[in-house]
Amino acid sequence: MNKPSIPKGTRDFSPLEMSKRNYIFDTIRSVFALYGFKQIETPAMETLQTLLGKYGEEGDKLLFKVLNSGDYLSKIDREELVNGNPLHLASKLCEKGLRYDLTVPFARFVVMHRDELQLPFKRYQIQPVWRADRPQKGRYREFYQCDADVVGSDSLLNEIELMQIIDTVFTRFGVRVQIKINNRKILTGIAEYINEADKIVPITVAIDKLEKVGLDNVNAELAEDGLSKEAIEKLQPVISLSGSNEEKLDVISNILKDSEIGTKGVEELRYIFGVLDKSNLKNEVQFDLTLARGLNYYTGAIFEVKSLDVQIGSITGGGRYDNLTGIFGMPGLSGVGISFGADRIFDVLNALDLYPENAMSGTRLMFINFGEKEMAYCLPIAAKARENGIATEIYPDAAKMKKQMNYANNCNVHYVAIAGENEINENKITLKNMLTGEQRLVDADELVSIVKS
Amino acid sequence: MNKPSIPKGTRDFSPLEMSKRNYIFDTIRSVFALYGFKQIETPAMETLQTLLGKYGEEGDKLLFKVLNSGDYLSKIDREELVNGNPLHLASKLCEKGLRYDLTVPFARFVVMHRDELQLPFKRYQIQPVWRADRPQKGRYREFYQCDADVVGSDSLLNEIELMQIIDTVFTRFGVRVQIKINNRKILTGIAEYINEADKIVPITVAIDKLEKVGLDNVNAELAEDGLSKEAIEKLQPVISLSGSNEEKLDVISNILKDSEIGTKGVEELRYIFGVLDKSNLKNEVQFDLTLARGLNYYTGAIFEVKSLDVQIGSITGGGRYDNLTGIFGMPGLSGVGISFGADRIFDVLNALDLYPENAMSGTRLMFINFGEKEMAYCLPIAAKARENGIATEIYPDAAKMKKQMNYANNCNVHYVAIAGENEINENKITLKNMLTGEQRLVDADELVSIVKS
Repeated sequence: MNKPSIPKGTRDFSPLEMSKRNYIFDTIRSVFALYGFKQIETPAMETLQTLLGKYGEEGDKLLFKVLNSGDYLSKIDREELVNGNPLHLASKLCEKGLRYDLTVPFARFVVMHRDELQLPFKRYQIQPVWRADRPQKGRYREFYQCDADVVGSDSLLNEIELMQIIDTVFTRFGVRVQIKINNRKILTGIAEYINEADKIVPITVAIDKLEKVGLDNVNAELAEDGLSKEAIEKLQPVISLSGSNEEKLDVISNILKDSEIGTKGVEELRYIFGVLDKSNLKNEVQFDLTLARGLNYYTGAIFEVKSLDVQIGSITGGGRYDNLTGIFGMPGLSGVGISFGADRIFDVLNALDLYPENAMSGTRLMFINFGEKEMAYCLPIAAKARENGIATEIYPDAAKMKKQMNYANNCNVHYVAIAGENEINENKITLKNMLTGEQRLVDADELVSIVKS
Repeated sequence: MNKPSIPKGTRDFSPLEMSKRNYIFDTIRSVFALYGFKQIETPAMETLQTLLGKYGEEGDKLLFKVLNSGDYLSKIDREELVNGNPLHLASKLCEKGLRYDLTVPFARFVVMHRDELQLPFKRYQIQPVWRADRPQKGRYREFYQCDADVVGSDSLLNEIELMQIIDTVFTRFGVRVQIKINNRKILTGIAEYINEADKIVPITVAIDKLEKVGLDNVNAELAEDGLSKEAIEKLQPVISLSGSNEEKLDVISNILKDSEIGTKGVEELRYIFGVLDKSNLKNEVQFDLTLARGLNYYTGAIFEVKSLDVQIGSITGGGRYDNLTGIFGMPGLSGVGISFGADRIFDVLNALDLYPENAMSGTRLMFINFGEKEMAYCLPIAAKARENGIATEIYPDAAKMKKQMNYANNCNVHYVAIAGENEINENKITLKNMLTGEQRLVDADELVSIVKS
């Protein structure tokens, strides 16, 4: 008999971890709902037709594919089986795959349910996704995404509300964050301005490294990427942009004054900052020209959130993407969304020890079991405690007192109720506070009122 | 471009369905917690080594298997590929499969985490499972199970608490149910008593049909199954058992007085009924000798729950099984558990229209959008509403009033806030109750207090 194991990159979650994770999910969920977002769920498996080609060539390889049921070999000819290309053969062996993210299933959902949906549709979705990535520290093959998106509205109010949601969620967590915002239109404008429209990706990648490697190295990399000397020169004021959001926007606005799309991007950001400035956010929102996040995906605003107190990379991200549903034959729907990284947020809250005590509480009251007769006395009192909403356990076996107390201790039970012959004769219970060690002889009503408070 | 679809037997859940499902899961979850059960989660994928051979030959076929990543063909020789048995080949193409139930992963969890666990371990788990069953009405390839189990305790108090949990859950749902209980030891005793110990399965199957086909047909079936005339004769008082739980137990007790195991089963049931009789259950618990539920699995108590008002089959079931973890090399751990059938409970609550209104509520307040200037006025009021916990939407686009009102209507928004030039000049908002049609001119504080109440 081999020792049982679980697939690499996957995890079991213990009761303590579940309490923490539920606290994270419940907090995010309740803020989504506060802003009028509505929850949906989609199946873990999607057809490979839905999934393939949506995440690039690398993504296709990272999809978990599910073997067809029944005689999965019957429709494949021998030649293909023996000499075929594994990727192509896989799509004959498998019709289904596991969800890789929540965005493609959402787009598929919108197209399939277009006639039932009320647009704009504000949906949120909190479900696991699966990726056959090489497992490494902090990267898993099964992990949760927490996404909120609005489709069917071009209004910048959506961007603003998503910033507010981010601010509210992290304020509730007690995590200080920096929210970064950029706009793809500005990046496009800059590439146009230096006459290198096709080099937008390497430009952004290089600029992104400024803080780490310094200006000279950035410029060297840009030259290596094939940017002309003139272009690099023109880019200098952009790279060394600094100051307040307003100051940065003024400089960029001036640089991009002849670019229609760039000017549009600046206007969008100005409007967003204008409203946010009046909305008492608890966290700073910073215009960061180097923010790109999978550039080809986004068409307008780009967001990213980092913890100020824990070095862990991006803990939330998102942006606006036009034509979400075009891949499924329903063009013209613009969307904007954010995704909270639950696993990293879990690590941040752990590092800062920010879980509130009441979110961690399990069983509050446990009855010691001395045997059938004593149990007959305790059961109605336990029932009364439960009727009052107190999470109550009765130790099921008449084990040694020490074993039962150890159990209570290890399970972080707050109060232990003890009723032996003496207590029963007096119609009382000895109630022990496990945190203070204090013991009191009480009746059932007192017990409930003490334990409940 | 093909129309997108989802794999057969799987479902999308709309916001309304999610509200209902969350109500069901939250109710079950909170009762589990009230009884001191602790939540765990396990990965969707388990190794096939963990899954295979645990659900019978049929079950192995119904497992969804996940194709190995990378070059999944490299370790398979050509001969096997072309001529091999598909099931055997599948176990070379695939190392992982999707969870088929929550019990086997739980057993695997207990064995893997034995050193961290506090026994008795009361765990609950609410997660989807996947089965490649032929899809049909009410049967899905992805569905949720809601399981609570206690391992590491032989005490009948566990059985009693599980009955109380069932009673509490369905009382909270407002669903009237009949809880049936039987004991495998009694069934074993009966088979011994009629000298047909090896025929326990056909005996139970035949008795189970009594109500449907009548006594003569049951006896005919028993004869067909190869039971001797004498055995069938001896079985008559058992088949025609009737009366109260106590009366039935008295008859059975007398019949089984020479069977050690049968007498043990009767004693167990007597103890359970004795305690339950004093615990004010809202639903009836009935001793049902015909209840078997996958007989080979259970070793003690067997439970089943049926709705009294909707014909839909079993909506909850469970029982005691010895040696849960023996399959993974850790013998001697007894377990007892129940599983709520969320999908059928969903159907029952739908049929009886039992969803409470507050569980169904989405956005409570929506602001009509007349444009940037009006929005600047509304945003701080919306923020105030949200600070007061009111789920609030701002219609993101300055669309036609009618379109916005339609949206509010179709999304079941309770209150709509309207602020045009007049309202802004007076520093007020027109608040419309969408249920009554009533409109009032109010200030921000009044708005909050009306909408909140």
